[in-house]
Amino acid sequence: MNRRRNFIKKSAITGAGIILAPNMSFGGTKNNSNRLRVGVIGVGLRGTNHLNNLLKRDDVLVTAICDIDPSRIEISLNKISKSRKSKPKIFGKDDKDYLNLLDLKEVDAVVISTPWLWHTRMAVDSMRAGKYTGLEVSAANTLEECWDLVNTHEETGSHLMILENVNYRRDVLAVLNMVKQNVFGELSHFRCGYQHDLRFVKFNNGKQAYGGGVEFGEKGISEAAWRTQHSLLRNADVYPTHGLGPIAVMADVNRGNRLVSLTSHASKSLGLHNYIINHPEGGKEHPNAKIKWKQGDVITSTIETAMGETIIVTHDCNLPRPYSLGFRVQGVSGISEFDHHTKRIHVEGTTKGHGWEDMDSWLEKYDHPLWKKHGPGAKKAGHGGIDFFVMNAFVESAKENVAPPMDAYDAAAWSAVTPLSELSIENNGEPQDFPDFTRGNWIKRKPFNWMKDSY
Amino acid sequence: MNRRRNFIKKSAITGAGIILAPNMSFGGTKNNSNRLRVGVIGVGLRGTNHLNNLLKRDDVLVTAICDIDPSRIEISLNKISKSRKSKPKIFGKDDKDYLNLLDLKEVDAVVISTPWLWHTRMAVDSMRAGKYTGLEVSAANTLEECWDLVNTHEETGSHLMILENVNYRRDVLAVLNMVKQNVFGELSHFRCGYQHDLRFVKFNNGKQAYGGGVEFGEKGISEAAWRTQHSLLRNADVYPTHGLGPIAVMADVNRGNRLVSLTSHASKSLGLHNYIINHPEGGKEHPNAKIKWKQGDVITSTIETAMGETIIVTHDCNLPRPYSLGFRVQGVSGISEFDHHTKRIHVEGTTKGHGWEDMDSWLEKYDHPLWKKHGPGAKKAGHGGIDFFVMNAFVESAKENVAPPMDAYDAAAWSAVTPLSELSIENNGEPQDFPDFTRGNWIKRKPFNWMKDSY
Repeated sequence: MNRRRNFIKKSAITGAGIILAPNMSFGGTKNNSNRLRVGVIGVGLRGTNHLNNLLKRDDVLVTAICDIDPSRIEISLNKISKSRKSKPKIFGKDDKDYLNLLDLKEVDAVVISTPWLWHTRMAVDSMRAGKYTGLEVSAANTLEECWDLVNTHEETGSHLMILENVNYRRDVLAVLNMVKQNVFGELSHFRCGYQHDLRFVKFNNGKQAYGGGVEFGEKGISEAAWRTQHSLLRNADVYPTHGLGPIAVMADVNRGNRLVSLTSHASKSLGLHNYIINHPEGGKEHPNAKIKWKQGDVITSTIETAMGETIIVTHDCNLPRPYSLGFRVQGVSGISEFDHHTKRIHVEGTTKGHGWEDMDSWLEKYDHPLWKKHGPGAKKAGHGGIDFFVMNAFVESAKENVAPPMDAYDAAAWSAVTPLSELSIENNGEPQDFPDFTRGNWIKRKPFNWMKDSY
Repeated sequence: MNRRRNFIKKSAITGAGIILAPNMSFGGTKNNSNRLRVGVIGVGLRGTNHLNNLLKRDDVLVTAICDIDPSRIEISLNKISKSRKSKPKIFGKDDKDYLNLLDLKEVDAVVISTPWLWHTRMAVDSMRAGKYTGLEVSAANTLEECWDLVNTHEETGSHLMILENVNYRRDVLAVLNMVKQNVFGELSHFRCGYQHDLRFVKFNNGKQAYGGGVEFGEKGISEAAWRTQHSLLRNADVYPTHGLGPIAVMADVNRGNRLVSLTSHASKSLGLHNYIINHPEGGKEHPNAKIKWKQGDVITSTIETAMGETIIVTHDCNLPRPYSLGFRVQGVSGISEFDHHTKRIHVEGTTKGHGWEDMDSWLEKYDHPLWKKHGPGAKKAGHGGIDFFVMNAFVESAKENVAPPMDAYDAAAWSAVTPLSELSIENNGEPQDFPDFTRGNWIKRKPFNWMKDSY
């Protein structure tokens, strides 16, 4: 990405206040070899998954990796060596070394998979360095960080994609297809959320990533080393995008619709304490048994949209329960509920009787073009295939340097649920207004074309 | 019920501010023949169902019936004649004639199944007349009416039972049994609601109760004649108790816990208009196609309790959908979700793996004593048997003149969701505080003993 192009982009966006349309290209970020040169910041478990998918692609060169944990760098280098790709430049001597990666001319695009408190600052630095930036979920921790993402995108012209993989789930895309083909009629109500027993993720024994103990922070490793702190101190939905991302796309949020306000309520905090005192490595005398956890076990946020829909978003990660993102899509003509255990639909005039219909034949009929084309190959990619699709969308968008399917405005609006839910809970359920991160432009922004087989 | 007993009761309750404990009896309302003499106000479809169940009992005499519709009186008299019971006194010459029924000495107890706007005033008059009063759901339309129920109970000493039949559903009582036996551990979160496509109830052709047209009010009959008006003018959860009643009992509401506050949100109003314009008897030119319906299609209320649980209550009656009360009971040790189509449970340490377990074996193991004893006979009673149990509890409580399982405080607290949800929706989701209808006594009121086989 050269200065001339940066100049054009900056003029086009902030000078005239014009938002980049998805089909506006500035010549792409491809280097001479037509390969996208990617720098990977953070090669923990999540970043390594992205690295794996990048290494499989002929149109990508991984030119740099960064991690402050030398063992993760070593694992990455082994993978790169086995895939017979060139050795990337290595960064991570301290926690600011990612800035040196961002200085590299041989990096067109950056994938960020780091602890949440690093997300926004790294994404901002990456956009400022002119890189096409992919940022893991959730994108921001505070409203100011949400604005930082939007403002930096607009000031620099660099694109930001939030890497929300659930938007590419086969059932999610099939239901999106149904929505676009008006199966449910005008939409009225949605449900979604992150309902995932994370107790074995939030605590481990400092040796393995998952379980085996009740340690976290300095005594834990992997996510327990940083994620658990958010449960300790924030009574908020700290992880809203797996649920809200897919629903926001179905509801055209930021593109003809927007999130207007929410109220949030937290149930009491029992689960993490209970886990500690009942764990074989814990117990009532364990130091962590004294901790008071701020985060309520089940956090319920109800969002109102500009078009009059309501969306219930749930955060339920501290109690024993089956995994479920609990999707519900409901309109004037029908309703569907689907998660990992249930797939059911009722469409007036089509479904026989007053009950549910199994959704399998619907999922087959409305299977998304992406899954028809790439499904078999994608399934090896991780999380049942969705990690392939989200990285594919990132790479293809970056190669053309066009706005990604899920952009800085989406990253901001979806992630804003965290600080807004915290404010509402702290204030006894007081409604909180979403900032309009599009500065009014949601009324004319066009939906991304999700219904194609390229990305 | 004589004056002497009324005097004692009045002193006991309002004089010293003492709340009647469930086991305090004043000698019962039994007449000399040991039969409870019941007056039935309202013998529409719902009241006739209660009448049927009363006529089957040897311990009940139906001594009076009241309805302003002569055709309903005729149907009732035929039923009574066929059951070889004595002919009751008849009332209904105008809409105040129920007061003459309440004047009868030969009425100990009254069952009220009338349009909602009559519920509270009739129940108040009935309690003032010294009758043991059974009131259909929902009990009250406004906060003032909620207080009227409580105040009149306390001033007169007459008992009020809200006739919430869903509290007696076999699965509901089995799950209550599990709650009492600590299967779910300390409770954290609940979901429930009335999710029932009522479009064919809210509209008919003036000849049949259900469907066949898009008329309501003066041109409709049965529920369409009065219920639909609430959808026209109130953006509120107008029917909260089928969901909230069972959950409130599980959560010991008004007995060691209470409903503290809620926020409510309504999705846009599409369903009823859409039904009218697409109905063969309706269409875009039908006069009712011009109507703007106030009630949103899906209304979501999230309640916070004094003990720190959250309860999501849904009202979803205007869109095509399968019937579901959508119960979820979640605690520190497990979770259950159950409705007419799904029954699933996950209990840590018992359920194998991380998924759901079918709940059938649990429902069998924790089958409630009432259902074990009366199940086969009850099933003929209506709504799968629950109508037998709710009327049984009413009759048995009235015979002993003791506080019913679901009393005036419950009727008030549960029904308060209607005006509170309306206020919250009108005010953009502002949290609304529940009045403490127990005047602080919830901290010492003991739970009713639900775990017995008598009622």
